[in-house]
Amino acid sequence: MTISIAHLGPAGTNAETAAVAFANKLSQLGQKSLLCPYPSIAQTLWAVSQGQTNLAVVPVENSIEGSVTITLDTLWQLNTLQIQTALVLPISHGLISLAASFEEIKTVYSHPQALAQCQGWLEKFLPQVQQIPTSSTTEALQHLGNEASAAAIASERAAQLYQLPILIHPINDYPDNCTRFWVLQKGTTEPEKSALQVIIKSINKPENSIFTSLGFSVPANVPGALVKPLQVFAKREINMSRIESRPTKRLLGDYLFFIDIEADNNHNYVKAAIEELKSYTDILKIFGSYTIMAIN
Amino acid sequence: MTISIAHLGPAGTNAETAAVAFANKLSQLGQKSLLCPYPSIAQTLWAVSQGQTNLAVVPVENSIEGSVTITLDTLWQLNTLQIQTALVLPISHGLISLAASFEEIKTVYSHPQALAQCQGWLEKFLPQVQQIPTSSTTEALQHLGNEASAAAIASERAAQLYQLPILIHPINDYPDNCTRFWVLQKGTTEPEKSALQVIIKSINKPENSIFTSLGFSVPANVPGALVKPLQVFAKREINMSRIESRPTKRLLGDYLFFIDIEADNNHNYVKAAIEELKSYTDILKIFGSYTIMAIN
Repeated sequence: MTISIAHLGPAGTNAETAAVAFANKLSQLGQKSLLCPYPSIAQTLWAVSQGQTNLAVVPVENSIEGSVTITLDTLWQLNTLQIQTALVLPISHGLISLAASFEEIKTVYSHPQALAQCQGWLEKFLPQVQQIPTSSTTEALQHLGNEASAAAIASERAAQLYQLPILIHPINDYPDNCTRFWVLQKGTTEPEKSALQVIIKSINKPENSIFTSLGFSVPANVPGALVKPLQVFAKREINMSRIESRPTKRLLGDYLFFIDIEADNNHNYVKAAIEELKSYTDILKIFGSYTIMAIN
Repeated sequence: MTISIAHLGPAGTNAETAAVAFANKLSQLGQKSLLCPYPSIAQTLWAVSQGQTNLAVVPVENSIEGSVTITLDTLWQLNTLQIQTALVLPISHGLISLAASFEEIKTVYSHPQALAQCQGWLEKFLPQVQQIPTSSTTEALQHLGNEASAAAIASERAAQLYQLPILIHPINDYPDNCTRFWVLQKGTTEPEKSALQVIIKSINKPENSIFTSLGFSVPANVPGALVKPLQVFAKREINMSRIESRPTKRLLGDYLFFIDIEADNNHNYVKAAIEELKSYTDILKIFGSYTIMAIN
């Protein structure tokens, strides 16, 4: 079986780097895989949800810029995907240009998150330059051929893939810059898909912490409506490693909550907590229990 | 005294529409004001923080896309600004183009939030069109003169300001689309600035609910570390209308929290709650108590 993996393309994006690293782990187990680039994160998730691919690799959160909200919103809507594992990728940005020196650069292209992550550096070294957002760091590189006065911010790997010169690297303002990705599969009990779960589990080290991700809505405008769900975990001393609110898209001030707990949903005390949680939430969705892998 | 108001420019952005509406409210009280456009939200906040303007109007949250994270991150860093009032502006988007029909359109330009808010409409009516992000909805309009096959997504007001034809309006996927703005002033006790506070207060209706916004960090990796701060409000039946987490930018998994409570920080029971909150938080910042005005 060849495992097909959807990711945000084209080649050279950080999502593709994460997917390649995951495919290498599968290869070490003798598993073949095939990378399938999609033009947006939403389309990447739809692809696995509709059975076009076996897995999807999507960014969830960056240590500087925070949540990738399209991932959370799409996961909530699709209702069918389960997280199999998480990957943590260190992120660094370089300034890529055919210009001979900084003085020649008039415009810098990159994804808005990458521009934001280099804002301090740009203000210090290229204060007069126009910053232009693109849909991916890779797309930014496409402008370099047309404009000698253009630069792009992208990874070293992207510069190498497209054989473009790196003027300076790294230029990100915060050195501890990482992005967390989720590897997702359509939730199912079919034997072939269960076999895939066994393969993914065997990559993970058993000593790693297990996390469970869930999402819920609470009754509107009830004082303390969010406190009761959180107490369910606090009183059992279950650590909540993350909470994120997202608008329900109905009314301003009406939210969904996404939380990660450091616990395995296959254990009885966690099952009991989630059972209790049902009485304090309107809609509750469990997105899976998984471990986190560091990749380089 | 002429009250200077910083906002994200140029003319035609939603931030400018909110600033104009607020200036009109001031004008009804016989107060002159001057709008000062800045190229980014961060620069808008720096301007008022450095005393270049008396006030700043910045977006905080959209009912579909969620928080404007640059506003929260910059407010936390600047340490000097106090919220004077909040404004809620209904948002609607139109498709603006010199093309004679949909068939001629090859590219659509707009701010990433506006593109996201019209994604369903675009997929239905312009599925083959390339979507290109711009730094503001107004900047998108600048592409229309150069390309006959280009369209932009922006407000009706922006189309009128730049005398451009609206092909269709509204095209946003969710009808209840609003953005909340904050009007901020440098925190101070100087008489002139206090006079401005009195003017702003007199615009608000006394029967409106009062909200207090605050931000805090909690000790890392303590189970239930977030529950204790929230219990401080829940046990006093103070409604928390919003919670937002933001990365501290140090480590993945290390967060700040921004919350809004429906209560006035000038009341003793709220002061007592905030006093108690200090024992469960590392850093605690109070961004002000204020009412919310609807504008059209």
